Amino acid sequence: MNNFTYSIPTKIHFGKGQIKHLNELKENGNKVLLVYGSGSIKRAGIYDQALEILKDNQIKVFELSGVEPNPRIETVRKGVQICKDNQIDMVLAIGGGSTIDCSKVIAAASLYEQDAWDLVIHPEKIKGALPVYVVLTLSATGSEMDPFAVISDLTLNEKLGTRAPCLNPTMSILDPTYTFSVPAKQTSAGVADMMSHTLENYFNNVSGSEMQAGFSESILRCCIKYGPIALKEPDNYDARASLMWCSSFAINGTIKCGCEVKWCIHPMEHELSAFYDITHGQGLAILTPVWMEYVLNEKTASRFAQMARNVFMIQELDDLKAAQKGIQALKQFFFDTMKLPKTLREVGICEKDNFEIMAKKAASKCAGSFVPLTQKDIVEIFNRAF
Amino acid sequence: MNNFTYSIPTKIHFGKGQIKHLNELKENGNKVLLVYGSGSIKRAGIYDQALEILKDNQIKVFELSGVEPNPRIETVRKGVQICKDNQIDMVLAIGGGSTIDCSKVIAAASLYEQDAWDLVIHPEKIKGALPVYVVLTLSATGSEMDPFAVISDLTLNEKLGTRAPCLNPTMSILDPTYTFSVPAKQTSAGVADMMSHTLENYFNNVSGSEMQAGFSESILRCCIKYGPIALKEPDNYDARASLMWCSSFAINGTIKCGCEVKWCIHPMEHELSAFYDITHGQGLAILTPVWMEYVLNEKTASRFAQMARNVFMIQELDDLKAAQKGIQALKQFFFDTMKLPKTLREVGICEKDNFEIMAKKAASKCAGSFVPLTQKDIVEIFNRAF
Repeated sequence: MNNFTYSIPTKIHFGKGQIKHLNELKENGNKVLLVYGSGSIKRAGIYDQALEILKDNQIKVFELSGVEPNPRIETVRKGVQICKDNQIDMVLAIGGGSTIDCSKVIAAASLYEQDAWDLVIHPEKIKGALPVYVVLTLSATGSEMDPFAVISDLTLNEKLGTRAPCLNPTMSILDPTYTFSVPAKQTSAGVADMMSHTLENYFNNVSGSEMQAGFSESILRCCIKYGPIALKEPDNYDARASLMWCSSFAINGTIKCGCEVKWCIHPMEHELSAFYDITHGQGLAILTPVWMEYVLNEKTASRFAQMARNVFMIQELDDLKAAQKGIQALKQFFFDTMKLPKTLREVGICEKDNFEIMAKKAASKCAGSFVPLTQKDIVEIFNRAF
Repeated sequence: MNNFTYSIPTKIHFGKGQIKHLNELKENGNKVLLVYGSGSIKRAGIYDQALEILKDNQIKVFELSGVEPNPRIETVRKGVQICKDNQIDMVLAIGGGSTIDCSKVIAAASLYEQDAWDLVIHPEKIKGALPVYVVLTLSATGSEMDPFAVISDLTLNEKLGTRAPCLNPTMSILDPTYTFSVPAKQTSAGVADMMSHTLENYFNNVSGSEMQAGFSESILRCCIKYGPIALKEPDNYDARASLMWCSSFAINGTIKCGCEVKWCIHPMEHELSAFYDITHGQGLAILTPVWMEYVLNEKTASRFAQMARNVFMIQELDDLKAAQKGIQALKQFFFDTMKLPKTLREVGICEKDNFEIMAKKAASKCAGSFVPLTQKDIVEIFNRAF
């Protein structure tokens, strides 16, 4: 096992009715910026519930709505302006990963004198942030319990991740009933996203990290069990609850500690989203099995075989054969069971013009991953995914 | 899944050489009470290393040594006196669970006007505590990453657990090399302790908690893999590191969240330790399989069978048979592989005089457990363990 520091400062209130804990915001002040995306939180009644609790606790609410699925730097800048103009004490994100990520960078940039984009491209410049609170409405990115934020500048074709310990939310409310109304397409993409986070951590070669690997396998089995149930019965509580808690544990640091490697699927997908604004989880689902097939060899086979046996319960003694069957099982799960798109063309990427530039940018970010990838490798992966 | 609140405020620095992080103590003041047990930390060189770092950071050190394996309230009182007399800012425990538990109650009672024992019998009276720091030297109780402390008053035959969020250590240093010198007997008892914590959490009937159950199974498999290696090769880094991290995760809240039940083996063992001062982990190893056999029936069989299949890899389709084989496998692991004592007589409990009173006290503490136990049940379990 490698050395590591483990710290999860976010407090989680999990379950039905936990929104009452929004009263804890008053510990940090009396002016909040409420950030959300579309009107879905209004239709679901969450917006009214939240406003009532905030009002009861004498907290004044400022609002920023319209956060995009791949949140834009322009929206961050709007939020920062509101915070600076009104001496806001904290930020409350009600939504999924995009809203949370946007809120995190607003929280940091509100304490920064220059432009918010600086903090996206230079994480080390983040020296502090307003406290961030979350009410989660989509199980996917795990941003409710991690120090990361991904922001896009589509004018530059850039989608970049930033991180800082102070970006960990202070408190997140995870009420699975808030995800009952999530449409099938987003449910599937969310499951692909959390499985991808898990796999990015799982594919490593660090000895003595069996406990963490077993945790990853448990998350993956849970996604495979409950993903289809959530599609068929959108208001199945155990399914929505399990997926919600899996999404947090896929990225909160637990499964990677002591065996951290650089991720490689995410950097590739971020380029697709940056150039074509596609749904993140769908891009990951398309790329993951293609990547696995591309890097499968005698050296990597044992880990893929372990996934096949412990996640998909494939009884096959030969590592290479087991690995191949595992990849097939993953494809079947993503594309047949969860109805995720299978090719880049299916998500609207119908030209190969940007493969070289996207691959070049991605290659620069995945040095040190489970299997090192060059620009040429990534172009080939894009081609096979086309 | 049930509602829950999840919060792990302890920061962990894990790995070789992490003791350097003792410099972080200066964030909380410049006077520390150093608490430890025997002289083993001096022989291992940890004591000198720690003192040097504290000195380099201008932190004045006061000392309390001689903490007992089942830490006594008298020792807590001595520590409290030192803290109150010298306006100590924080407590640093260097040792295993006993030293940490003792330090936690010292930290709380130093901010309490009356007797420390009050805080053991009335956890709700704990309103605050000095910051507690830990350098761990024994993998067992998980106290380095939890809000619990167990203290004994042997004059009253009482061994009681107390808890409060403020008892979570601020920061714990987990350097597996510090456990290379732990003798076989303590290594075995520690493995039994962490496995018992895991099993107490694992044996529940809450639906939708597969992720947590899978985490528990991973911890158990890891103990089964690395326990024997640590006995044979005491300085095997991966073995010591895996056991150390398992000990923390067995009790830090992760595997119980959403499916918490009252524990029942621990209350029984606490009575044995309170009356006979035996080694905690040994008592747990003796009682656990006896309890499993006692409560095994058609209703409980499926969970025991799940353990048999997913932890001991027993291929048996019938639940009852699988459960029985699983219990046999656990016995074999504890008593043959890990050389733990098998009966109460082997740990020096050679009379049955106190079975009724011990059972009465234990029964009052395990209401709401996986299988409810009466005083009569517990007497029978003690008899079978005799």
